[in-house]
Amino acid sequence: MTKSPLNFVVMLGSLRKGSFHAAFAKALPSLAPANVKITILQSIGQLSIYDGDAHADGFPAPVVAIGEAIKSADGLIVVSPEYNYSIPGGLKNALDWLSRLPNAPFSGKPVSIMSGSPGPIAGARMQYHLRQVLVFLDAIAFTRPEVMIAGINGKVDVDAGKITDETTANFVKAHLEAFAAFAERIK
Amino acid sequence: MTKSPLNFVVMLGSLRKGSFHAAFAKALPSLAPANVKITILQSIGQLSIYDGDAHADGFPAPVVAIGEAIKSADGLIVVSPEYNYSIPGGLKNALDWLSRLPNAPFSGKPVSIMSGSPGPIAGARMQYHLRQVLVFLDAIAFTRPEVMIAGINGKVDVDAGKITDETTANFVKAHLEAFAAFAERIK
Amino acid sequence: MTKSPLNFVVMLGSLRKGSFHAAFAKALPSLAPANVKITILQSIGQLSIYDGDAHADGFPAPVVAIGEAIKSADGLIVVSPEYNYSIPGGLKNALDWLSRLPNAPFSGKPVSIMSGSPGPIAGARMQYHLRQVLVFLDAIAFTRPEVMIAGINGKVDVDAGKITDETTANFVKAHLEAFAAFAERIK
Amino acid sequence: MTKSPLNFVVMLGSLRKGSFHAAFAKALPSLAPANVKITILQSIGQLSIYDGDAHADGFPAPVVAIGEAIKSADGLIVVSPEYNYSIPGGLKNALDWLSRLPNAPFSGKPVSIMSGSPGPIAGARMQYHLRQVLVFLDAIAFTRPEVMIAGINGKVDVDAGKITDETTANFVKAHLEAFAAFAERIK
Repeated sequence: MTKSPLNFVVMLGSLRKGSFHAAFAKALPSLAPANVKITILQSIGQLSIYDGDAHADGFPAPVVAIGEAIKSADGLIVVSPEYNYSIPGGLKNALDWLSRLPNAPFSGKPVSIMSGSPGPIAGARMQYHLRQVLVFLDAIAFTRPEVMIAGINGKVDVDAGKITDETTANFVKAHLEAFAAFAERIK
Repeated sequence: MTKSPLNFVVMLGSLRKGSFHAAFAKALPSLAPANVKITILQSIGQLSIYDGDAHADGFPAPVVAIGEAIKSADGLIVVSPEYNYSIPGGLKNALDWLSRLPNAPFSGKPVSIMSGSPGPIAGARMQYHLRQVLVFLDAIAFTRPEVMIAGINGKVDVDAGKITDETTANFVKAHLEAFAAFAERIK
Repeated sequence: MTKSPLNFVVMLGSLRKGSFHAAFAKALPSLAPANVKITILQSIGQLSIYDGDAHADGFPAPVVAIGEAIKSADGLIVVSPEYNYSIPGGLKNALDWLSRLPNAPFSGKPVSIMSGSPGPIAGARMQYHLRQVLVFLDAIAFTRPEVMIAGINGKVDVDAGKITDETTANFVKAHLEAFAAFAERIK
Repeated sequence: MTKSPLNFVVMLGSLRKGSFHAAFAKALPSLAPANVKITILQSIGQLSIYDGDAHADGFPAPVVAIGEAIKSADGLIVVSPEYNYSIPGGLKNALDWLSRLPNAPFSGKPVSIMSGSPGPIAGARMQYHLRQVLVFLDAIAFTRPEVMIAGINGKVDVDAGKITDETTANFVKAHLEAFAAFAERIK
């Protein structure tokens, strides 16, 4: 059976150049099933802090562009670290801007979440907060297998943008396959 | 019995000029017990998005100033709306910056949370996410009575910076008294 | 277009005879779309507290029966109050038992949550905790519109098992229609 | 300086005989500071499921006894596994019963939480749900260091009721010292 092509986009929650999560995100396209194309969205780091007055003046151009890319995608993958037991402020700020777009880019959209940390909890606390946000955004959050990479700093090659730990790479592959099947199911 | 003087600072999670929460925050000093001085911290709206590379270049001046004000205060009051079922990105971003300060301004600090919304849930979802963040920050979150103001838009005078609904004003007074006693207890 | 028949089952989180939530649950079948049959599952109140040693002796008969009913249903509706800002212990205990069943009754199952309270928050805190549990159970939680009935005590007729407030009844109707469409979509 | 004596009680969330958490709880008294006495409360496993009708008939004897023990203690330690990404139903059921006691045993009480799991997340999801419950109960939840023991099955001797891993034992010692100082501070 030929599977229909799927187009996933990736939103990245960390901004620094040597980010483990950025390396992780860069590795995703090569781990995707054959019918799945994965593109990394532009950075959310240049956005101003959401402010109702600024909003009244219109949306920043990157918000519009990211919103359109999500709207037209078959699924969204959020790759992010946890900051202070919750969603990084910058990622949440991007979601706050995007949530006001009239085209409601998240509505009915399949969403996968991936996180890691140098320690063992691996972003779990961020993931459940993000899931609660996704309820308001009316997205359909993918459940399992959950991707929480403990010791992520030892499992990626930051310069090459690769996952170097084979078990991790295979697990991410399996997640992407399951997420693709999920996106297909609810398309 | 004379109570010792207490110095509380207020962090505001919403940025627009006509904000109901800003009006609410402005009303707090006049509702505080006689021994309690309440000061509103400077805006968190001009901060850049937290970024490990930017951090390596040093802290923005407002982060340092806010951090020092919290560190030397007897308690922190966070007044904030809920955005997308969680903490506003801008507020979380400020906490992300502040959390990296070497003087750990939140550690052992009594924290009160106040929120409202035009609808009935009144920021509850934001409050419990913020409480989880406060665990990491090692703050001591005040419990009850919780301040969640349903229909906040009809209970404040935005221009005057006042709480116009008497029941609400009295409830906030009672909360501030209880929070002051709590801050006193753990001083 | 004829819609295919759907079979939903209802798990009830409160046990007392005069329960507002029991009345609410009883009202659901008459508010369902024509193609949807809704059945209330047997009580979870007689279960023993989950215990690994008891589990080793086998599953209680009601756990097996409830598990089979959920497994063969097209969707599950949980109707429950909030106890102490979270899931009632009895409901969580039932889920703990059911989660160990080898047939994994929740896996891939569409789940809707409905709650209310005499006060304004209306079970919101219970709902997000339950959603986190549903992630582990690999269920697919329906998002919106969320059913959180403030002032539920004034909106149901406990003796008749009816929703007496028309706005509420219509809202629940709309929710059931949307949930049925969701269950159809991911079938 | 002589420290005043402190009396802590332990509530255990798992019931089976060979429980890792039971072994962990049994080890606590020997790891406590000299001025701290730790007693394990009676089992919560024999309680019926909370039910408003049953409640109207009075409290079960164990609920009254546990409530009095907590009320007169200087602090409560909850030792529990995580079930299905949340609080075990049996533990939550005990809290539901206890929360209705007229003497409000949790009000203003310092509470520490300890958990573990064979895997890496180590009960974190249970802990944050429990913290939310503690807000309603008006308890004062201790923050850090948090005790989340990954791989708990390899770190306790179930028969002897001991923590066999030295790093873990020392970490628990440090936690108990910090919790005792916290309980002292807010006494």
